[in-house]
Amino acid sequence: MTHQDELKKLVGEEAVKFIKDGMVVGLGTGSTVRFMVDALGKRVKDEGLSIVGVPTSERTKKQANDLGIETKGVDEVDHIDLTIDGADQIDPNFQGIKGGGGAHLWEKIVAINSEKNMWIVDESKMADQLGSFPLPLEVIPYGSKQLFKRLEIGGYHPKFRMKNNHYVMTDSNNYIIDLHMSKINNSQKVAASLDHMTGVVEHGLFLDIVNTVIVGRETGPEILHAR
Amino acid sequence: MTHQDELKKLVGEEAVKFIKDGMVVGLGTGSTVRFMVDALGKRVKDEGLSIVGVPTSERTKKQANDLGIETKGVDEVDHIDLTIDGADQIDPNFQGIKGGGGAHLWEKIVAINSEKNMWIVDESKMADQLGSFPLPLEVIPYGSKQLFKRLEIGGYHPKFRMKNNHYVMTDSNNYIIDLHMSKINNSQKVAASLDHMTGVVEHGLFLDIVNTVIVGRETGPEILHAR
Repeated sequence: MTHQDELKKLVGEEAVKFIKDGMVVGLGTGSTVRFMVDALGKRVKDEGLSIVGVPTSERTKKQANDLGIETKGVDEVDHIDLTIDGADQIDPNFQGIKGGGGAHLWEKIVAINSEKNMWIVDESKMADQLGSFPLPLEVIPYGSKQLFKRLEIGGYHPKFRMKNNHYVMTDSNNYIIDLHMSKINNSQKVAASLDHMTGVVEHGLFLDIVNTVIVGRETGPEILHAR
Repeated sequence: MTHQDELKKLVGEEAVKFIKDGMVVGLGTGSTVRFMVDALGKRVKDEGLSIVGVPTSERTKKQANDLGIETKGVDEVDHIDLTIDGADQIDPNFQGIKGGGGAHLWEKIVAINSEKNMWIVDESKMADQLGSFPLPLEVIPYGSKQLFKRLEIGGYHPKFRMKNNHYVMTDSNNYIIDLHMSKINNSQKVAASLDHMTGVVEHGLFLDIVNTVIVGRETGPEILHAR
């Protein structure tokens, strides 16, 4: 295991301490989350913890089930107590960007349906300002070239996300456009503008959503209380 | 032909007078639009009019092509000069509701990419206030039951649109939720709230979009200039 992975593992183990018996827990996706799900599986096995996981991807679902963690879909549960997910960039006000993995729509749907949200990240994700990580948009394919032009004119510096010369498709069969804005000066205003644009299904700005952030520091996991 | 159809036919014939040689024309969907496309096909045949149609549905595309009207997709044209479409309800300020046919997402994408928009309707679509026609939402299936609960709590009176016990699917493979609000008192505010909701792909409020409305009156087609 690399040193970086050791730090992520410590963060994952710290995160699962917040999970209590009987909880419905949203399970995110990503490299740090993978360690968290491993640690959760261990608690379920060792302590007989009874929890229901709500995974945000097929990958996490499979990992959870393999570890004996029961999972349900977001529409099969009454509520979600706590969701633990990664993030691509977090600013000092705990506003975040997600969607580097192209799953921010489903992740946001799980997040807004959770009573509490926790992000677990390595140190590199903490930034003074959002925007150096490109902001992902999930967009409807129909009319997306016209939308792209509109984004260009609006100064958003859009790029279609491609893989092997094909458009990357999301789980909802939409395209991704990444906005290379370098700096996002007013995230609330940018979010409102993008929300309003026809053809944009969801943007990767997660504002006023996270309650707790755990950062993998050299000195060990640091717990930050956001709101 | 019923009397109602005769009035619609007159509206369609009036509408195509606005189409000039060389134009790129958005072609909507619906019973009045069908008469308009018929009249356009006649002009293309009789006058050798050279126009490109951008249809908002497979049905209109087929009709246009059968009549010898060339069609292109919304992402294949530089611009759209004029879109002629129907509407489900229009208020005295020319704000409208569309989506009764479940196609409001694609229709809105074509509309916002058009320099001018015209709605052609029968008299029954004109209303003192929006809302007695249920407001359609296109929504992401994932998490839609949670979204439905949120809409219920918000007082939107949602109903999933069903057919033969199955969810109606849009051309983008999403569900439709109709909001039975009876009266929409502040359409701009309702639109902004719905734009902001995660899982809502697009609502059927078409605000500040239409330039000209042609209404099929007993006394003949009435042309209204909106903006």
